[in-house]
Amino acid sequence: MPRYCLKAVCPDRPGIVAAVAEALASKGGNILDLAQHTVVERSLFLLRAVVEAPAPIQNFESTAAKLSMRFELHDLAKRPKVAILVSKTAHCLYELLLKHEDGHLPCEFSSVIGNHSDLESVASHFKLPFHHVPVASGAEGQAQHEAKIQEILSASGVELVVLARYMRVLTPSFVKQWDSRVLNIHHGFLPAFSGARPYAQAWDKGVKIIGATAHFATAELDAGPIVAQDVLHVSDRSSVEELSDLGKDVERQVLVRALKTVLEHRVFVEGGRTFILD
Amino acid sequence: MPRYCLKAVCPDRPGIVAAVAEALASKGGNILDLAQHTVVERSLFLLRAVVEAPAPIQNFESTAAKLSMRFELHDLAKRPKVAILVSKTAHCLYELLLKHEDGHLPCEFSSVIGNHSDLESVASHFKLPFHHVPVASGAEGQAQHEAKIQEILSASGVELVVLARYMRVLTPSFVKQWDSRVLNIHHGFLPAFSGARPYAQAWDKGVKIIGATAHFATAELDAGPIVAQDVLHVSDRSSVEELSDLGKDVERQVLVRALKTVLEHRVFVEGGRTFILD
Amino acid sequence: MPRYCLKAVCPDRPGIVAAVAEALASKGGNILDLAQHTVVERSLFLLRAVVEAPAPIQNFESTAAKLSMRFELHDLAKRPKVAILVSKTAHCLYELLLKHEDGHLPCEFSSVIGNHSDLESVASHFKLPFHHVPVASGAEGQAQHEAKIQEILSASGVELVVLARYMRVLTPSFVKQWDSRVLNIHHGFLPAFSGARPYAQAWDKGVKIIGATAHFATAELDAGPIVAQDVLHVSDRSSVEELSDLGKDVERQVLVRALKTVLEHRVFVEGGRTFILD
Amino acid sequence: MPRYCLKAVCPDRPGIVAAVAEALASKGGNILDLAQHTVVERSLFLLRAVVEAPAPIQNFESTAAKLSMRFELHDLAKRPKVAILVSKTAHCLYELLLKHEDGHLPCEFSSVIGNHSDLESVASHFKLPFHHVPVASGAEGQAQHEAKIQEILSASGVELVVLARYMRVLTPSFVKQWDSRVLNIHHGFLPAFSGARPYAQAWDKGVKIIGATAHFATAELDAGPIVAQDVLHVSDRSSVEELSDLGKDVERQVLVRALKTVLEHRVFVEGGRTFILD
Repeated sequence: MPRYCLKAVCPDRPGIVAAVAEALASKGGNILDLAQHTVVERSLFLLRAVVEAPAPIQNFESTAAKLSMRFELHDLAKRPKVAILVSKTAHCLYELLLKHEDGHLPCEFSSVIGNHSDLESVASHFKLPFHHVPVASGAEGQAQHEAKIQEILSASGVELVVLARYMRVLTPSFVKQWDSRVLNIHHGFLPAFSGARPYAQAWDKGVKIIGATAHFATAELDAGPIVAQDVLHVSDRSSVEELSDLGKDVERQVLVRALKTVLEHRVFVEGGRTFILD
Repeated sequence: MPRYCLKAVCPDRPGIVAAVAEALASKGGNILDLAQHTVVERSLFLLRAVVEAPAPIQNFESTAAKLSMRFELHDLAKRPKVAILVSKTAHCLYELLLKHEDGHLPCEFSSVIGNHSDLESVASHFKLPFHHVPVASGAEGQAQHEAKIQEILSASGVELVVLARYMRVLTPSFVKQWDSRVLNIHHGFLPAFSGARPYAQAWDKGVKIIGATAHFATAELDAGPIVAQDVLHVSDRSSVEELSDLGKDVERQVLVRALKTVLEHRVFVEGGRTFILD
Repeated sequence: MPRYCLKAVCPDRPGIVAAVAEALASKGGNILDLAQHTVVERSLFLLRAVVEAPAPIQNFESTAAKLSMRFELHDLAKRPKVAILVSKTAHCLYELLLKHEDGHLPCEFSSVIGNHSDLESVASHFKLPFHHVPVASGAEGQAQHEAKIQEILSASGVELVVLARYMRVLTPSFVKQWDSRVLNIHHGFLPAFSGARPYAQAWDKGVKIIGATAHFATAELDAGPIVAQDVLHVSDRSSVEELSDLGKDVERQVLVRALKTVLEHRVFVEGGRTFILD
Repeated sequence: MPRYCLKAVCPDRPGIVAAVAEALASKGGNILDLAQHTVVERSLFLLRAVVEAPAPIQNFESTAAKLSMRFELHDLAKRPKVAILVSKTAHCLYELLLKHEDGHLPCEFSSVIGNHSDLESVASHFKLPFHHVPVASGAEGQAQHEAKIQEILSASGVELVVLARYMRVLTPSFVKQWDSRVLNIHHGFLPAFSGARPYAQAWDKGVKIIGATAHFATAELDAGPIVAQDVLHVSDRSSVEELSDLGKDVERQVLVRALKTVLEHRVFVEGGRTFILD
């Protein structure tokens, strides 16, 4: 039987679960997995439900309207199109493609776009189109670069963009257009070590742990809502290069975990931060 | 407003969430946190909900009956009475009492019962009654020991027993009477290293990780349903004594985490294993 | 046979291990555990060795002088005196005293000093003297407070001070006098969230991990050399209070791990950061 | 300057480090990193040293003979040849090849050998020869299979074999010939869940953690000396398939970590278990 995922947010009040569950049951929907949490600090009701139903769930709008509820209803058989932006570093790209091949990521990768052409053979190996979109110098160059990317994304109906160690800063206008739909991996444990060379910063401080952060891109660099984070204990015998080498493991894993979480419709962005419903 | 926790299990079918939520809402209940999961392999519906309601939720039985549902409804203001059984080792006992003092464990400790008197001063420091219940030799001695313990538990209305490195094997008849209500900490990563001297076994094998397992006691030694587990990476420079010393940290943490999970009504024991709803 | 620990630092060049080992062997010393690392980036030779020897190792100075080596030679039977400074929060103090009681920390706690008297009964329970040293208002008050603490430390021959959630900022002059001998626990993952209310900062950012950092106190707040760090994954269902509650576990563990590392003579402070030899 | 790695084992007695370091220094060797540990329980002296020296270190035999020392001296510029055996599952193979491409694994992969041909394209993508060595039925078939593998290994001077989810049991005679030189990944946390279908065993038990173990193959199945282990916390919402999917991450990481540890000459196999010197 087809499965659907409902994601819903509204101001808290009694009876919301009953109203939602009744609306689903009236269409023959059987809830298989439900997570609901009220952020009491903000009177914010959050709900995610996986439902088995004989047909697409219709007319949910009327239920939602009564509750001032924003919602999304996803047919889990339809896999969103995702584009991957890269530069020269392969480990995050490989991880995304391998995990996808293993059936771990419920999406369809439409293409890989690189400001360099180094990773073309990786895309080919996984039978994905690769677009080399180089960048001319200056603000004008970046604008043309982004316009070309936008063109590719639009042409293939992309819904989500993953920056897999894409080493350029996107302009605020691009980021705004793709609000909460550009997932970036920062190779540091944010908010510590934002900006460039986080591993060198970490070595100088003698930190005992390095980490990585996946977050939605926002106009402010490395400050967008955090989707996933993890860390690794490191030895003081490690050089900056070894920290960077070790850090790759955390980066690729955090990025894939974040993408999976987004694709499973578990991420709510509210008031500048995320709430994840596991 | 008072809060209640509903824990419910029944065979899966459509409409259960709606029926339950409707029953709660009809009493003015506001669901603050809900976790529902269907174990598809077993057509088993599991639900845990925290509800805010103006008055105790009554007449839930009729809803449950229609769904062939087993359920528990707990007033979260009432804290269950828990007894702690110990021998000579202090670390798990301290951890339980300290975490309780910090407000981390929603229960009331009624007493500490020891087959030795070594830990009496610890109980006193935390203003808890201590019962020294020594054991005479032989099966007869154990029977008398357990009868005396049972008497203490009954007298104080204990609902749950925690074995905090209590180093004796309880008889099947005692365990059966307290089915799924005796929480034990095993100082090994079960099912590996069951039985005695797990750290020596681990050293001989040269394992790189040691662990601890909190489980409900059953008639079969160290084989009851698992509630919590964790591990620790260890160095091969460690002696058996050092492994044992390090292991204490995992033991006490796993025990407290397990107890908290039980007290928060998150643990379902079904078909010989647990399902935890976070 | 008595055991000694040698800790040595010098500029790198060939033959240092041979010279050191020869000096130790010539006194009948048997090396049981040796860790040596050269920080190639800084041509810095670091060595830690545990040695079994029939008598105290003497005349090591001449070997060291030839190598421009700074060194410490510790008789492992002699346990350094350590003072603990506290305010009102008990979890770090308990952890230090319990781990010490278990034989996990090779030191002698001389006393507990509090700017409040709340934790006096904890010290008493572990049979330790407690000094209540209140603070009058203003810079003058802090100066008198520190003078009194200094007096207590001097009177009992204290070699190391542990700040176990002592909630005051020590003056630069005090810190300087105790350079690399005041160990602090910061309840945040430094350098992120330095300063006050790190858990509230973390909640606002929606971080998925919280942490704690043990570091030597320096004149610059929360910026001293890091000795140990650890983190914990947290759920977005947690409130600030729950984060703070969960964070206590990391804090106490990181503090004890840091203290143990210092007491085992594994921590080298060089160029503003630490190098730990495991 | 060339670097060498010395790995040495002998009965403990005073003066070994001095003798070894002196022998190295007399050839102009500069020790950059040294780890020494005495397993006191067994009077066993273990040492690993990385040495920078103007020329290959010669005549170490005489020093070793005086100490009844077994030793290996490796030129770190020479990379041992390693063969990878696979079946149909790609994740461990990819991980080995990707980490190698990143410079993380100091070896040369000579070839990939599969009892099935499914992974040929993966080997090709990384420009490695692939040998399809099918297995005819019966003991005879296995013998011919192993003879063919042996032929390939001999022809290319292979020193170490990695079983990257190679799903066949090697015969004792093969394993004996390659004693401590066949590294296997078991997709369970040994000694728990040895044998087949560990994830199904884990689900039935309701374990909260799954793990993987890399070990040297011995005649007894899944019981050889352990080189690396790690675990992952899992949710009770996971099916057997999801556990298996999640487990892949641990498997590939543990296998690569184990291989790196072996290639860095850190693994001592003594008395049926390993000792790792970090």
